[in-house]
Amino acid sequence: MIRAGVIGASGLAGGELIRLLTQHPDLELTFLGGSSSVGMRPGELHPGLRIDSALTVRHVTENTAARLDVAFLATPAPVSAELAALLADRVPAVIDLSAAFRIRTQHVHDRWYPKVERRAALVDRFVYGVPELVGDQMTDAALISLPGCYATAITLGLAPLILGMGLHADRVLVDAKGGSSGSGLRPRTSGLHPLRSGAITPYAPTGHRHAAEVTDFLQRTRPGSISSMSMSAYGVPTVRGLLASLYVFTDRAVGRRELQRAYLRFYKGHPFVRVRRHTETRIPVPDPQAVLGSNFCDVTALVDEDGGRIVVLSALDNLVKGAAGQAVQAANRRFGLPEETGLTMQPVMPA
Amino acid sequence: MIRAGVIGASGLAGGELIRLLTQHPDLELTFLGGSSSVGMRPGELHPGLRIDSALTVRHVTENTAARLDVAFLATPAPVSAELAALLADRVPAVIDLSAAFRIRTQHVHDRWYPKVERRAALVDRFVYGVPELVGDQMTDAALISLPGCYATAITLGLAPLILGMGLHADRVLVDAKGGSSGSGLRPRTSGLHPLRSGAITPYAPTGHRHAAEVTDFLQRTRPGSISSMSMSAYGVPTVRGLLASLYVFTDRAVGRRELQRAYLRFYKGHPFVRVRRHTETRIPVPDPQAVLGSNFCDVTALVDEDGGRIVVLSALDNLVKGAAGQAVQAANRRFGLPEETGLTMQPVMPA
Amino acid sequence: MIRAGVIGASGLAGGELIRLLTQHPDLELTFLGGSSSVGMRPGELHPGLRIDSALTVRHVTENTAARLDVAFLATPAPVSAELAALLADRVPAVIDLSAAFRIRTQHVHDRWYPKVERRAALVDRFVYGVPELVGDQMTDAALISLPGCYATAITLGLAPLILGMGLHADRVLVDAKGGSSGSGLRPRTSGLHPLRSGAITPYAPTGHRHAAEVTDFLQRTRPGSISSMSMSAYGVPTVRGLLASLYVFTDRAVGRRELQRAYLRFYKGHPFVRVRRHTETRIPVPDPQAVLGSNFCDVTALVDEDGGRIVVLSALDNLVKGAAGQAVQAANRRFGLPEETGLTMQPVMPA
Amino acid sequence: MIRAGVIGASGLAGGELIRLLTQHPDLELTFLGGSSSVGMRPGELHPGLRIDSALTVRHVTENTAARLDVAFLATPAPVSAELAALLADRVPAVIDLSAAFRIRTQHVHDRWYPKVERRAALVDRFVYGVPELVGDQMTDAALISLPGCYATAITLGLAPLILGMGLHADRVLVDAKGGSSGSGLRPRTSGLHPLRSGAITPYAPTGHRHAAEVTDFLQRTRPGSISSMSMSAYGVPTVRGLLASLYVFTDRAVGRRELQRAYLRFYKGHPFVRVRRHTETRIPVPDPQAVLGSNFCDVTALVDEDGGRIVVLSALDNLVKGAAGQAVQAANRRFGLPEETGLTMQPVMPA
Repeated sequence: MIRAGVIGASGLAGGELIRLLTQHPDLELTFLGGSSSVGMRPGELHPGLRIDSALTVRHVTENTAARLDVAFLATPAPVSAELAALLADRVPAVIDLSAAFRIRTQHVHDRWYPKVERRAALVDRFVYGVPELVGDQMTDAALISLPGCYATAITLGLAPLILGMGLHADRVLVDAKGGSSGSGLRPRTSGLHPLRSGAITPYAPTGHRHAAEVTDFLQRTRPGSISSMSMSAYGVPTVRGLLASLYVFTDRAVGRRELQRAYLRFYKGHPFVRVRRHTETRIPVPDPQAVLGSNFCDVTALVDEDGGRIVVLSALDNLVKGAAGQAVQAANRRFGLPEETGLTMQPVMPA
Repeated sequence: MIRAGVIGASGLAGGELIRLLTQHPDLELTFLGGSSSVGMRPGELHPGLRIDSALTVRHVTENTAARLDVAFLATPAPVSAELAALLADRVPAVIDLSAAFRIRTQHVHDRWYPKVERRAALVDRFVYGVPELVGDQMTDAALISLPGCYATAITLGLAPLILGMGLHADRVLVDAKGGSSGSGLRPRTSGLHPLRSGAITPYAPTGHRHAAEVTDFLQRTRPGSISSMSMSAYGVPTVRGLLASLYVFTDRAVGRRELQRAYLRFYKGHPFVRVRRHTETRIPVPDPQAVLGSNFCDVTALVDEDGGRIVVLSALDNLVKGAAGQAVQAANRRFGLPEETGLTMQPVMPA
Repeated sequence: MIRAGVIGASGLAGGELIRLLTQHPDLELTFLGGSSSVGMRPGELHPGLRIDSALTVRHVTENTAARLDVAFLATPAPVSAELAALLADRVPAVIDLSAAFRIRTQHVHDRWYPKVERRAALVDRFVYGVPELVGDQMTDAALISLPGCYATAITLGLAPLILGMGLHADRVLVDAKGGSSGSGLRPRTSGLHPLRSGAITPYAPTGHRHAAEVTDFLQRTRPGSISSMSMSAYGVPTVRGLLASLYVFTDRAVGRRELQRAYLRFYKGHPFVRVRRHTETRIPVPDPQAVLGSNFCDVTALVDEDGGRIVVLSALDNLVKGAAGQAVQAANRRFGLPEETGLTMQPVMPA
Repeated sequence: MIRAGVIGASGLAGGELIRLLTQHPDLELTFLGGSSSVGMRPGELHPGLRIDSALTVRHVTENTAARLDVAFLATPAPVSAELAALLADRVPAVIDLSAAFRIRTQHVHDRWYPKVERRAALVDRFVYGVPELVGDQMTDAALISLPGCYATAITLGLAPLILGMGLHADRVLVDAKGGSSGSGLRPRTSGLHPLRSGAITPYAPTGHRHAAEVTDFLQRTRPGSISSMSMSAYGVPTVRGLLASLYVFTDRAVGRRELQRAYLRFYKGHPFVRVRRHTETRIPVPDPQAVLGSNFCDVTALVDEDGGRIVVLSALDNLVKGAAGQAVQAANRRFGLPEETGLTMQPVMPA
């Protein structure tokens, strides 16, 4: 068994990691790390969990490293920056779910995360990206940084166009809609049920750091492929799940069939990305409710001839494919396990 | 008292009209029209209402006209097309909430509403538009056609730019998010609570007829002012309310202050449009929960310098400012009453 | 105009009072009191409100009293206890929405509210109760204490049985289901949207102080009328509204018609209590969604012959009839205004 | 592999069975039966599912039987009554999720299910009950009838008192609160999102057939153990999950510790029933959100000394432990597999 530790055990991503690791045949949860919840058991923190385990949350120290094969950092970015420095070269694999090491270009990082200081020498050592695109680099990688939830959906939505078809995107507009779990469990008035239950809230209407993250990645991967990306993000009254709408203006017209074929081809052999037709089921898809609890990302690309644009829709469960599930997927890659190991759960729908 | 009839009494807009008319000091509800619900009282149809009235739903006939000063048509577009022909010139004022007479250009109408046949001679006689823009034409008008719920939000969001500042819009992208009441009360599996409760549903991702309606209006009002408008519409798990996000690319750069001043100036003296700052209250606004049950449309315009675009957010209650409230507002205009008569209710929030 | 002050302006009940007072023809909002939100305007605190008023929140002092005809205390019980002592005999009418003066019997108060100390001399001077039952005592009353939201629903549900029909209740079980607005706006993890959105939470399964309050009132009003009342309370994922289910075992059998007639007779002339048949509309009632935003309390009494019990269902909007609306109703009584003044708004449904 | 067929593939329980069977190591889904959806694939019916399977829905005939080791009937009760007659003795195991064969006493069945005619000779051959209580009888059983969702929760909540501690229940009141998925996918106005989203609906306030079912079972199992059971059922705005509140008046007083110990003892070795303390985690439990998607039933028993009653709270996911999960659990029992096979998924929370 591969010994796994979850650090940041009291948060939503931490709880989801615990859920997934208890269902995993090859990864064994052997350590829970945290600061505010030291001494607590998983079930006290996460009402759904009641695992027959003697584990309680403990402080992370240098000694922690000796007991782990892989450390999942489900911590705030500043904490991840510190822990990565502590655990790198001590734990065989460090998988960071935070934003600390996502943006490689330093001045872009500084603009969007001015408070997150990180060791420069570490940045370049991190493999960053969705496993579908950079999975090969993850094999035996010591340090892995995973994309943000929206960045995952956007990257998976754009990749077939930019990297697969080789189109140039003159302009990409992202309109992202997400549930309340994306904001975590920090107590604050604006996150209370009465103020969120009926909300369609424009919380980031003129820019979002996940767009900077995607641009940074795509420009490194295929320089010059995107001229402009802008993003607006909204909170809607679901708990889990997000839908990223990508409005893409490209350098040449693309037909409906060409588009569909390109997406199917690009994701052939990638079990977690489901290329779906818009009307293939009882409700229009992609809709995040149809991936709830699973590691799927549903993607559909449509041609809007009147608008002269391509409309790509990308939906995922932000706590699974957008966080904990993708982290397990990366760990599977890292340790040479089949990619789907422990991640075969089907969506729980309706919920 | 002005005698008012509500036709289409069993639907959501009809129910909302009944609610508002019972609170109106000068309009008196004297007739309920319908077909499937003949014989029923308002409270049997609308669980919130228990009005001490002897009114029951009746069929509309020529005789109906004699008893009314104003007929509100809260009927499906094909029915409105027929009823308008029946009631025009017989009732002093016919106010249609449906799409039957919204788009003046016939071939545009035919494209988006191929099943809605209407008498050509009637089309030009209808005054169409939001009262804030065409209210003067409504005074003593015999036939009034009101915009769709999204069209109202989009028009009020764009008007200060296009009609007020005289900007040219090279491109407008509309991303519209709305609640389930927009789909009415027709039984269907996809509208059931289990399938809508956790949904972020892309029900019209590559085009929506309300964009055609707005374009038709703006091109008539200021020819050449918009080169391209495209729209995508999504269902989210609220009941009432919609948020229209307008991403506008214009022919010249505009500063933040200039923008704010232009919006404030444009809506000066228009009590139902509230120009709001994005962060002026506990939650980011505009958010449709902050107008619930009221006739307000909240509008905010922002500059996204990175994206080279203006972001306009426009929120309203689709059953009030997007339907019944706007209809009462139009009736107030029609009969020379102060515009706010019977419409002073404050938003019910949180709900 | 009667000058009204709202103290506790930043809370949900305070916000609702502001909403209602701006719609009231005879009460004028002239003062906003608070402590944490001093200097803020209503619209900054309550996203739905944008009142053209120069009012900002201020500290309450002795001088406050001179400017007010009525002070509404929408403050936590300990604060109300202090403010009542300060304002009594200085403001002509003090209307307290908190629990400070609800339970008259001191040892019962001490058991359920051990931290709420109140001046003994004041307790007996307060008129306590729902206006439908003690409205006459409210005329010209100096001090008025209003029931809790559940207590209002329970009292209105039981009164026709106990006070109208003169039945003896051997046993009453209350199962109360309510929305998240009942918990206010204090930040806390368990109140966040992710943890409340899918909840059916047994937050008070073996007892609730509102049952003690109702028992205290009924025993004073008709000694010996109830042998035992127990209560369990649950949170469900609505925002506004509550439904109290009362399972009543009485000393004699009652028929369905006798019951219905007794309820209709008891509430004749009381416009805010709507005695409804269970199946009179599209959905079973009473359902709190059918009173949302209004001052109605919907009540239905049913006979369960198999169970040998009477089932009474009582639904209201906890922020209106359960708080601010009832306070305005009491103020109307206090100042000799028609009871419905400013409270004629119809329910906003669906929402 | 054990060949399994799901009949009633288009409904919610059918979809859930498909979800669970695709995750099951020993049961293989080899047949989908239905009538209205013949020819459709699982993914067309259930938006979350996209199984790489050639299966489409087919009519059930006698030939169907030859290909199956077990047939799950997720059909309406009248259809199940017919299919059971067809498939009994032809398929080694028939597991019926409907109400057709739940109530053994014929006149009780006829009262609550007057339209469900069933072959008398079949009734006695069915093993009925929750696997925790009658699992031994399920081994090698040919015909298995599973309890309703509420009946499962109530039975598991009462069994430790009645069957474990041997208490006599003078009176049991059940107040049941459930989500919208309990009503299925039949289109109807009252089930639409706008009318259910803010609802606390008393849909069965004076009686529910699941109480009759539980009484019938307990009276057979331990005659005279309950004098009276009455039930009221409410719809709340969740999708999955139910909470049954049991208010129990017994023949002798029971202490808190005795109660807790009795429940722990009774469910020792039963992995799907979690005996929980009310305050052991971040939110009060049992709460159905904490079992979502899993086969757990969470149970807590409390003493209400003031009320002279025991309060038992029992929560489960109506589509899993209340339907499809319990059916798989029964199949595991039937075929001698470990009870948890294919059912180890942890709750998905928050959702």
